[in-house]
Amino acid sequence: MSLKVVVIGGVALGPKAACRIKRVAPDADVTMVDASKLISYGGCGIPYYVSGDVSDHQQLQETSFHMVRDEQFFQDCKDFKVMTETRALSIDRKAKTVLVQRKDGTQTALPYDKLVLGTGSTPRKLPIPGRELGNVFTVATLDEAIRIKEQVAHGVGSAVVVGGGFIGLEMAEAFADMWGIETTVVEVADQIMPGFMSKAMATIAEKHLAENGVTVLTSEMVQAIEGEDGKVARVVTNKRTIETELVILAVGVIPNDTLAREAGLLCSERGGIIVSKTMQTSDPDIYAGGDCVLVENMVTGKLGYYPLGSLANRQGRIIGTNVAGGRETFDGAIGTYIIKLFEYGFAGTGLSLPVALREGFDAFSTHVMMSDHSHFYPKRDMVSLEIVAERNTGRVLGLQGVCHNGDSIKDRIDAMAAILKYRPTLRDVSNMELAYAPPFGSAMDVLNSAANAAENILMGRNLPIQPLEFAKLWENRVNENLLCIDTREWGNAEPFVTKYPEFWKNIPQGQIKDRLDEIPRDKKIVLLCNTGGRSYESQVILRHAGFLEPVNLQGGMGFIKQLGFDPSEDE
Amino acid sequence: MSLKVVVIGGVALGPKAACRIKRVAPDADVTMVDASKLISYGGCGIPYYVSGDVSDHQQLQETSFHMVRDEQFFQDCKDFKVMTETRALSIDRKAKTVLVQRKDGTQTALPYDKLVLGTGSTPRKLPIPGRELGNVFTVATLDEAIRIKEQVAHGVGSAVVVGGGFIGLEMAEAFADMWGIETTVVEVADQIMPGFMSKAMATIAEKHLAENGVTVLTSEMVQAIEGEDGKVARVVTNKRTIETELVILAVGVIPNDTLAREAGLLCSERGGIIVSKTMQTSDPDIYAGGDCVLVENMVTGKLGYYPLGSLANRQGRIIGTNVAGGRETFDGAIGTYIIKLFEYGFAGTGLSLPVALREGFDAFSTHVMMSDHSHFYPKRDMVSLEIVAERNTGRVLGLQGVCHNGDSIKDRIDAMAAILKYRPTLRDVSNMELAYAPPFGSAMDVLNSAANAAENILMGRNLPIQPLEFAKLWENRVNENLLCIDTREWGNAEPFVTKYPEFWKNIPQGQIKDRLDEIPRDKKIVLLCNTGGRSYESQVILRHAGFLEPVNLQGGMGFIKQLGFDPSEDE
Repeated sequence: MSLKVVVIGGVALGPKAACRIKRVAPDADVTMVDASKLISYGGCGIPYYVSGDVSDHQQLQETSFHMVRDEQFFQDCKDFKVMTETRALSIDRKAKTVLVQRKDGTQTALPYDKLVLGTGSTPRKLPIPGRELGNVFTVATLDEAIRIKEQVAHGVGSAVVVGGGFIGLEMAEAFADMWGIETTVVEVADQIMPGFMSKAMATIAEKHLAENGVTVLTSEMVQAIEGEDGKVARVVTNKRTIETELVILAVGVIPNDTLAREAGLLCSERGGIIVSKTMQTSDPDIYAGGDCVLVENMVTGKLGYYPLGSLANRQGRIIGTNVAGGRETFDGAIGTYIIKLFEYGFAGTGLSLPVALREGFDAFSTHVMMSDHSHFYPKRDMVSLEIVAERNTGRVLGLQGVCHNGDSIKDRIDAMAAILKYRPTLRDVSNMELAYAPPFGSAMDVLNSAANAAENILMGRNLPIQPLEFAKLWENRVNENLLCIDTREWGNAEPFVTKYPEFWKNIPQGQIKDRLDEIPRDKKIVLLCNTGGRSYESQVILRHAGFLEPVNLQGGMGFIKQLGFDPSEDE
Repeated sequence: MSLKVVVIGGVALGPKAACRIKRVAPDADVTMVDASKLISYGGCGIPYYVSGDVSDHQQLQETSFHMVRDEQFFQDCKDFKVMTETRALSIDRKAKTVLVQRKDGTQTALPYDKLVLGTGSTPRKLPIPGRELGNVFTVATLDEAIRIKEQVAHGVGSAVVVGGGFIGLEMAEAFADMWGIETTVVEVADQIMPGFMSKAMATIAEKHLAENGVTVLTSEMVQAIEGEDGKVARVVTNKRTIETELVILAVGVIPNDTLAREAGLLCSERGGIIVSKTMQTSDPDIYAGGDCVLVENMVTGKLGYYPLGSLANRQGRIIGTNVAGGRETFDGAIGTYIIKLFEYGFAGTGLSLPVALREGFDAFSTHVMMSDHSHFYPKRDMVSLEIVAERNTGRVLGLQGVCHNGDSIKDRIDAMAAILKYRPTLRDVSNMELAYAPPFGSAMDVLNSAANAAENILMGRNLPIQPLEFAKLWENRVNENLLCIDTREWGNAEPFVTKYPEFWKNIPQGQIKDRLDEIPRDKKIVLLCNTGGRSYESQVILRHAGFLEPVNLQGGMGFIKQLGFDPSEDE
């Protein structure tokens, strides 16, 4: 008798698991069921379909060799059966059957030896009136994406995206960039991408969105959606009313664990199926993975929810191997992400500083800015990085950054993502041997430099002030008795010195050791340059000369400018 | 009394160490000596200066903020003394002095508490006549680079580069691409980049060089350089005579260890100073690093020679910390590289297959090909990877690859470089959580796929044939009784089937399980598709049907095409 396998869910994890099962155990009798008509699509590609970068929705369903992954494809090429528009109603674990219902209402009990749950997730519902109005969408399925694109193609003047996470921002870009729609993002947290980006990185991203015509409203809560003639007309927040023709609700997703829960499988109280490292549920004949399960965060060691397509694919392969009699394990997630926002790539891995602190780490972070390729090579872009480390151990907890060249920021983030599970220290990152030639990097890479900067702070060699702290300090410059020492050459410093002679003084780094008596000892001194390098050198000189707490602006004026804070253009 | 430090060598390691010493111990009295007038330049940038990408040689000496790193710069900004055009003659370890000689012949004994040797390397000399002729250069120093550029700017019609390593190839590109010089590379090994690239990758690189007008002659030995009127006119090899106006000798470098050796410091018999992990020589008051030392290869555990600017910089920082009283260690090298050859980036880390086998590993490698960004995203390039692993343990030993988007190949290589010292297995790479969004990657990245492919081979699930093996098999197709089953659609297979009906048969993967009786059981079967994916699926079906050894072309016809082997265009 061949192994009977039923796979529930046909988007990311399900097909991957089913294909892998058939490759490892070609005899297996595999059936995959999905409630929808469209299956096995790249869900992460939906915003690019809506934008038009991907012209036809079928492309999201295609293999790299342009075959559409439909029922027939899986039957012919992968040798398993697919039942679309078929809903899994319940699992009878004793009889080892899944009761499914077809579109026409007929019900069948599918027998299984092994069952795979890839039931995915559902967009979180906001408890507000008006959700049911026309032109109010979530971005849950390809069907819905097709309807959204039909709407924007017919002409939409304005849109509101509720939720400033990945999908929300990618949809906002699609609307504003490709369709010229006046787009507003409303986020309840005090920054976009909470939980992923630090405040500083989010500030850069928000500025970049604004520059590209997307209005971003943070710390603002949507209270109602109002309509006319059954279609959305306005979004009401706690601060204002926004006229709009279309609304996207993208406030996160929740795991679809009802089927598992009703079958008595162990689930978290907060939602999500609990699985072992072999991706087995509390019933060893039932596997689960993808957006419906919780997995361990390899940095914190705690269970977390990571509804990412990339994890679903890897878990699907592991489940496939194990169902077919092998033994593979999924060690956990580290939360690596990348997002394109107009001209920039923003990426990160591990814990952001706010998350690290919330998780109880005695963490700190620092910012560096450097070019991705050699500073003397003509083709190059600036990379901004923020590295997060633990104070006592020097353990690296996370990294995030931004670059105009998205592949360049991905490179640094991926190198860090690769080692995070080994609990690296700053020293490991400082000595990381990345590929170097002038067209593609620097002898000392920006990632090495980030670790060096953090290590200097950790060892007390560098007294830092982080960019957002500096912005606050600058606002209170009178009360704080602030003096910025600009260690760049006069050309860079001139506009600031001219505008704020009381608060901004220029002493190029090469002159500072001979001009120490020009620096008052009764002021709060901030040393700064373009990137934080020369100001660090200057700080060493000042401290050696007995200045007590001269702080050094991390990431320098380059980072400050990215934040959108430019004292020379104040007021 | 402040700590007296003498640093010998002013290019990469020396300045880095000296600067770091001053930052950690500002009181230290540091003197750096160098035999040359030009110091602290980015030596790796020389080919880009010769090409004109970098217009002025001074840019290679500049900081990122456009200050020239000369004697005055180090005095003013870094607070240490530099003596250029000053040669270190000998070390008196008992008296703790270094005898140096200035340009004018005056000699001085510089006292030290700690001595740092960054004496670098010298181009290996070929034992052939004619080396002293005019227009015969090595690429040892910036002075020499300036003279080379003067020559090419005055008009050079043809050049011969002896040596197909990094510098040689980068110079060849500079000559051919920017100056339109008819350029020939002569390499004594049977491939370019021996020791770094595998035969397959080198074949791709050689083809790409040829397409861009560079003649590459491998397995060919230069025996003499002949001249007229004191200037080079011809290069004589064991196979031919090449008329040329300029010769670059780039056959590797040897460590400058004479000073250390004569002072009785432990050196390797084959050359190179032996240092501890703290970068101390056998005299604990003398540190050494950069191109003059040997370091441990972290993959093999053996001492090796890695004259790379990126390592010199990291070692310089470690030496600086240690000289100043700290304790940092350099764990070793893994041999990460990247090189731009015209439109492509070639990169690698760890051991290539030939090196792994030579080092005694029971190693194998496999090829995969996939796009760097989502296959449905419009902006994307193909990445070719070759992953090297150990047969019994599944330990990953190395990775190399090529992509039109150099940043994309660097990304995959860097992620692998980051973990190599942790002795990862294929499973670790298979589950590596790289940053994913359609504009920048795939849910299952090409790097994950490479590990998956190798693991399938290791587990016996995939019977591979590697691209170069296939090329040989194809040559002997009659004797080998070969039949290629092309599992792509007819459009792809047609030119091959038409030209070689006896040897090439088309059965699209989706039809193969129903057309098994069309496949002869008495032929050597090679299954193939564009990338190796569908042919793998087909192989599973054939083996399940009792075909004994149908092999699957790794990397598919895409890789074969990159190699320059195209059966449809044969003869």
